[in-house]
Amino acid sequence: MLSLDQVYQASYALKDVIRPTDLIRAKDINPESQIYLKTENLQITGSFKIRGSYYKISQLSDEEKSKGVVACSAGNHAQGVALAATKAGINSLICLPDSAPISKVQATKKYGADVKLVKGCYDDAYAEAIRLEKENGYTLIHPFDDPHVIAGQGTIGLELLDQLPDLDAVIVPIGGGGLISGIAFAIKSLNPNVKVYGVQASGAPSMLDSVNDNEVKSLKQVSTVADGIAVKKPGKLTFDMCNKYVDDIVTVTDDEISTAILTLMEQQKLVTEGAGAVAVAAAMFNKFPIKGKKVVCLLSGGNIDVTILSRVIQRGLRTSGRTYAVNIELVDKPGQLRDVSSIIADLGANVVSVLHERSNEASDINGCYLRLVLETKNFEHIEEIKQALIEAGYNISPMLCTN
Amino acid sequence: MLSLDQVYQASYALKDVIRPTDLIRAKDINPESQIYLKTENLQITGSFKIRGSYYKISQLSDEEKSKGVVACSAGNHAQGVALAATKAGINSLICLPDSAPISKVQATKKYGADVKLVKGCYDDAYAEAIRLEKENGYTLIHPFDDPHVIAGQGTIGLELLDQLPDLDAVIVPIGGGGLISGIAFAIKSLNPNVKVYGVQASGAPSMLDSVNDNEVKSLKQVSTVADGIAVKKPGKLTFDMCNKYVDDIVTVTDDEISTAILTLMEQQKLVTEGAGAVAVAAAMFNKFPIKGKKVVCLLSGGNIDVTILSRVIQRGLRTSGRTYAVNIELVDKPGQLRDVSSIIADLGANVVSVLHERSNEASDINGCYLRLVLETKNFEHIEEIKQALIEAGYNISPMLCTN
Repeated sequence: MLSLDQVYQASYALKDVIRPTDLIRAKDINPESQIYLKTENLQITGSFKIRGSYYKISQLSDEEKSKGVVACSAGNHAQGVALAATKAGINSLICLPDSAPISKVQATKKYGADVKLVKGCYDDAYAEAIRLEKENGYTLIHPFDDPHVIAGQGTIGLELLDQLPDLDAVIVPIGGGGLISGIAFAIKSLNPNVKVYGVQASGAPSMLDSVNDNEVKSLKQVSTVADGIAVKKPGKLTFDMCNKYVDDIVTVTDDEISTAILTLMEQQKLVTEGAGAVAVAAAMFNKFPIKGKKVVCLLSGGNIDVTILSRVIQRGLRTSGRTYAVNIELVDKPGQLRDVSSIIADLGANVVSVLHERSNEASDINGCYLRLVLETKNFEHIEEIKQALIEAGYNISPMLCTN
Repeated sequence: MLSLDQVYQASYALKDVIRPTDLIRAKDINPESQIYLKTENLQITGSFKIRGSYYKISQLSDEEKSKGVVACSAGNHAQGVALAATKAGINSLICLPDSAPISKVQATKKYGADVKLVKGCYDDAYAEAIRLEKENGYTLIHPFDDPHVIAGQGTIGLELLDQLPDLDAVIVPIGGGGLISGIAFAIKSLNPNVKVYGVQASGAPSMLDSVNDNEVKSLKQVSTVADGIAVKKPGKLTFDMCNKYVDDIVTVTDDEISTAILTLMEQQKLVTEGAGAVAVAAAMFNKFPIKGKKVVCLLSGGNIDVTILSRVIQRGLRTSGRTYAVNIELVDKPGQLRDVSSIIADLGANVVSVLHERSNEASDINGCYLRLVLETKNFEHIEEIKQALIEAGYNISPMLCTN
C-alpha cells in the first residue's frame, strides 16, 4: 500500500522534470460554484502521465535501469514513459497496436523511445509487452495499477493543497483509476474534509460498475470520445483505493464531453482531449453537489487529434446555432437561386456550401433541391432566415448531416 | 512621456486585478532556439488589454470616475475596458459598429459595460464615442496611444524579466503599438541588451511602413486573419516609442499565422487568435536572428471566433496531408462507386463526404464525377491512395475547395 512519504518523495523527485502546472479560475463553467482548472493539459507531453512514469522509473534498481523498461499504450502513457525514461537516461520500448495513429507513433519516438508496432489490437500489443518483459528482463511500467505510479500522480494532490488550501472538492477523470487514487490518497491524508469526486465516460463505466458491485468488473467493450479513459477493467489496487478514498463517481455522455471541450476552448483558451474535459463536463452539468463550493476540475490531458477536435467544433457550431444546414425545395425555373441568395445575403448569413440538385426522387418532377450550409449568428438568426424563406414561398427542411 | 515609475505603479495597481500569466517552455516551435510563451491569451478577458485599461482608469480623478468612461472597439479593448471599469466600480459605455459579431457584443455586456451599437463601420463607432466624450464628459479610453495604457501593458515586461531574467529577446505583436511600446520601454530601461522585436500582419503593416518612412503613415485598407492587429494608423506616441526602443519589425502572412495557430493548439494545447499567434509565426518561420537564443514569444490574446478557428483547422488539415479532396472521373456504369470505395477502405482512409454527379460538361457524355473528401494520415498516405486509383484505371484531379 501507499504511504504519504512516497508522495512527498515523488514530488521531490519530479522537481526538475515536470512543470508545476497553473491553477486557473474559470468563472463561467458553473456560475453557482467557484471553479478552478488544474491545467495538466499544459504539462510536458500534454498530460499528467509523466509524473507516475518518472517516479516509478526513479525507484528502479541500477540493474533494472540498465535493462530498460517496456510499456504498452497508444496514448498518453506511451509518451509519459518515453520521456520519463529518456530523462532518467535509460532505454524504453513501447508496444503499440499497428492501427495506432501515425501522430502517436511519431510523438512516442520523438520522446526517445523505441517503438514496436504489434499486429492487432491493444490486447495483442499488451501481450507482446509482457512477452518482452519476460524474455529480456525489461521492467513493465503499468499505466495505473502500481503504487509508485499512483504516488507520482498523487503529487498533483499536494500541488492543489498548496495552490488552493481552502478548496472544498476536486473532480478527477477515472480510466484505470491511477490518477484519482493518487490525488484522493494525498488529499484525504492531509485534509479528509475535501471531497474527491470521480468522473467516467458513460461508454466506459468500469470503475463505477466495479465500485457498485464491490468487485473488479471487466467491460466487454468500451466506446467514448474520451479515448484516454476508455478502460475495460480497473486495477486491483486502484479499485481498493477508489473504494476507500473517493466520495462519489458519476458518468458523462459524449455530448456533454464535447460541450465541455468546446467551452474550454472558447472561454478558457485551453485545448483538452475527451478524457481531459470530463471533470468540467461533470461541473457544467451539475453532476455533483458543488453549489457555493470552491472546486478544482482536473484537466488531465490535451492530446486530442485535430481531426476529432474539428468534428467537436463542427458539432458545437450546430448545437449552438452558429451553423445552419437547410434543404430548400425549388421550382426548376430561372432566378430561384438568385432569389434565395438575396434573402440570405440580406439577413447577413455567410454561405459555406451550396448543392443545387435536380431530379431528386422525393421532389416534384419539375422541382429541384438547393442544399445550403450557412454560418449564422445564433438560433434567433436561424429563425429569421427560416421565416424569410417561408414567407417568400419556399418549402424548407433541415439537413441531417452537414460534413 | 513614460517613466519606469509608472510601470511599477501599474504593476502594483494590477496586483489584485490580473493574473500573472504563466511562461511556458515550448520545445518544438523552433528547434534551434529556446522558445518560451508568455500566455496572455490565458489572461482574464482572454487578452492583455485589461492591464492598460485598468491602470488608465485607476489614474482618473474622482470627478472623471464619477462621469464614467467611453471606448470604441469591436474586440479585446472593449472587453478590457468593460471589465476594468466594473472592477474599479465605475460606468463604461462601449461603442461598437452594428456589424460586430453577437458574441463580442455579449462578452462586452457580460463584463458590465453598456453597449451602443452604431450604424456603419469602426470609424463611425469611433466618431460616436468622440461625440459622447464631448457631450457627456466621459473619459475616452484610447486603445493604445496613451502613456497610462502603455504603462499598463509594460507590466508584462517586468513580469518577463522576473520569470526569465536571462532572456535574450522578446517577440511582440504590433497593431497600434501600445503593447510593444510598454514592453520595450520596461525591458530596455532595465536591460538594454534584451532585443525587442515586433511583428505585424503582412496585410496591415502600418507601424512598419511608418518606421521605414520615419513618419506616421495611414493605410487605406487592412486585411488579415489577425483582426486584433488590423490597425490602419499607429499612434503618435507609440510610433515614437517603437522608433526608439524596438530593434526590428517584420511581417507574417495569413498562411504563416494559420500554421502558428494550429501548431499552438496541437503542440501546446493553447488557443490563440490571429494577432495572438504572430510572434510564434515569426519564430517558426525564422524572421529574426534567434538561433541559439532564449526567446519569449508573446501570445497577446485568445479571443478567436470558433468559426474562424474551424476554418484554420480545416486549412491546416489540408496543408498537412490529413484531408484529401479528390475528383474521380468514372464511366457511368454499375459498380464504379463500389470499386472506388473498396480501394479507399483497403488503404484505411476515412470518407468525410461524397458527391456523385452526372452530366458534368467537362466529362464524357457517358461519364460522371465522384467528388470525395477523405481523412488521411499524411502526404505519403495520400500518394498511396492516388497511386492505387491510377493503377485501377481512374482519372483523378485534385479538388480546389473542400468546404
